[in-house]
Amino acid sequence: MRTDDGIAAIPVPGAQFLVEIREQPSAVLRLLEHEHEFARVAAAAVARGASTVRMVGHGSSDNASSFGVYAFGLLPHWTALRDSIALTVYYGADLDLRGSLVLGLSQSGRTPDVVEYVDRARRGGAFTVAITNDPSSDLATAAEAVLPLGAGPERAVAATKTYVNQLAALGLLAAYAAGEGPRFADGLRATADQLAALIPALEPRVPPIAAPFAYVGRMFVVGRGAELATAREIALKLLETCRVAAEPLTATGLAHGPVAALDAMFPVWVIASHDPALPAVVDAAERTLATGAVLLASGSAAETLPGVEYALPVPRARSALHAPLLSIVPGQLFAAALARARGLDADHPRGLTKVTLAR
Amino acid sequence: MRTDDGIAAIPVPGAQFLVEIREQPSAVLRLLEHEHEFARVAAAAVARGASTVRMVGHGSSDNASSFGVYAFGLLPHWTALRDSIALTVYYGADLDLRGSLVLGLSQSGRTPDVVEYVDRARRGGAFTVAITNDPSSDLATAAEAVLPLGAGPERAVAATKTYVNQLAALGLLAAYAAGEGPRFADGLRATADQLAALIPALEPRVPPIAAPFAYVGRMFVVGRGAELATAREIALKLLETCRVAAEPLTATGLAHGPVAALDAMFPVWVIASHDPALPAVVDAAERTLATGAVLLASGSAAETLPGVEYALPVPRARSALHAPLLSIVPGQLFAAALARARGLDADHPRGLTKVTLAR
Repeated sequence: MRTDDGIAAIPVPGAQFLVEIREQPSAVLRLLEHEHEFARVAAAAVARGASTVRMVGHGSSDNASSFGVYAFGLLPHWTALRDSIALTVYYGADLDLRGSLVLGLSQSGRTPDVVEYVDRARRGGAFTVAITNDPSSDLATAAEAVLPLGAGPERAVAATKTYVNQLAALGLLAAYAAGEGPRFADGLRATADQLAALIPALEPRVPPIAAPFAYVGRMFVVGRGAELATAREIALKLLETCRVAAEPLTATGLAHGPVAALDAMFPVWVIASHDPALPAVVDAAERTLATGAVLLASGSAAETLPGVEYALPVPRARSALHAPLLSIVPGQLFAAALARARGLDADHPRGLTKVTLAR
Repeated sequence: MRTDDGIAAIPVPGAQFLVEIREQPSAVLRLLEHEHEFARVAAAAVARGASTVRMVGHGSSDNASSFGVYAFGLLPHWTALRDSIALTVYYGADLDLRGSLVLGLSQSGRTPDVVEYVDRARRGGAFTVAITNDPSSDLATAAEAVLPLGAGPERAVAATKTYVNQLAALGLLAAYAAGEGPRFADGLRATADQLAALIPALEPRVPPIAAPFAYVGRMFVVGRGAELATAREIALKLLETCRVAAEPLTATGLAHGPVAALDAMFPVWVIASHDPALPAVVDAAERTLATGAVLLASGSAAETLPGVEYALPVPRARSALHAPLLSIVPGQLFAAALARARGLDADHPRGLTKVTLAR
């Protein structure tokens, strides 16, 4: 990086990560420039008789797929699953994939087993679609159709705008499949406006809330329904940028064992949104408080939870399927602030590269 | 608990948990006494045109469902998914459930949202089956058919024999649906024999291996394919009985972010079985070693991995779908030994009860 006068600038650790968090409102709008492509692919999926959606991806892409379960379930009433890649790629299982819409999610379009899964699924009769930032990638080539993410170059290793655009892409595709595309797209435009107001307002509020967690070793991040994706993605940001052992759990899963591990040194972050699944989250919050663990909450209902020590609320979204685009922001900003407090470089987590070529 | 002479015995912490681990070979054989019921339900599922299997459960039941994805995928070539309970129960999504086999998994048969899901799915046209230890439970009543687990009373809060019998039940049902029931059942009988030899042989070997982990705070447990269920279940045992923040990850997921959190104080347990997915596990082990983290391995290929500090091998199983019944044992015994080393009572983890009624 060079300044205008040609002198090499000293890179500030985590600066790129923050820049990309701030770019999210415009990234969502860039995705919407491709709205007609989403309409076309959705129409093709409907014409092909798709009613099962198989999503494949790792890391943030897999987290976004958790949201896809709800987007396709609630809009076209299709069954969407985070499919097992291993079943096809390693075991060679002979599943009948006609009637399946396969969505390969990869920022780079280079994740090896995702490319291989899509290649096999296409030969098996599925309608395959690549959702990627790189329309010339292996993944895009392997798939029958490509939906560009339009997030623009993402340089920080930990994904931010790519994740938000994956949510937007899955929601938009599901909405067009249900004949509700234009209305969902309007909601995304409104969400981009909300993001543009939220991010600068929240940014200065987060570091003092992150500071007390400077030495935390373990956390749970709890969500349910459409916000389970948010819990998974916040946990991943904390793992990769802050080196916190942050585990995502469903609100109900917390009670089925993991709650026994909690104590005052093991805080819990709950995603509390005004959403039909909120009662399960409230139940999880109460079980957390009973252990003496500290409760941190984000989401539009963060301040309504009892016993919350730290709240990072976000505005109410247009719908339960727009909410996760807002709910993720406190987690991203918290990860940026906590990484800085711990002396870590969120742009370059140790041992990671932007493109992961793991088997 | 009373001794023969009527004097109240002093309960040894964790004794019941160990007793039930040792009961697993006979529990598997008890399940096989119901083999004809599995044959009958499988035939009914085939007759009803089922080709999608929706599994619902929490905790260990949900972990067993990860195995079900592979059992149904590899044997009758059906698509099996850990379905979203929230989509049906909280959002009231209007999915077309005809053509679906719904499996409600709950030891007690009392998990509220699982009962409600099964009730709704039955009214929506699915073929609903309860897999439970209590054939008179709410879940059994809600479902059209019941498959008894036959594990016998489970008193320790943390499930062991229930989990192994859930694996056996899912495998047996899948095998009968594929016309391979008797052969799979033979394999289960052989597995029960292997378990009966393995458990007493392994039991004295585990405490010295658990001892160095007495103060560990965080771990990853890594598996892939059919052994992902094992990784999830071992992590849950460590969480609930030992209060270790143990997070399960797929071997490929590890590389997509979480690996950045590893260091010498953050050990990784990998499930390495002779299985088509083993190359992904080897890749994960190599990435782990590069961080300086300690590697602990179980599974039939545990001793073949490079750089393993602690190995708890198990015998090779009849098939990739019988292996997880063996692979879980080192995790159960390790949890029992580590709980004791930490002064915790594995029979009664703090804040848990045997029947979880969380929303």
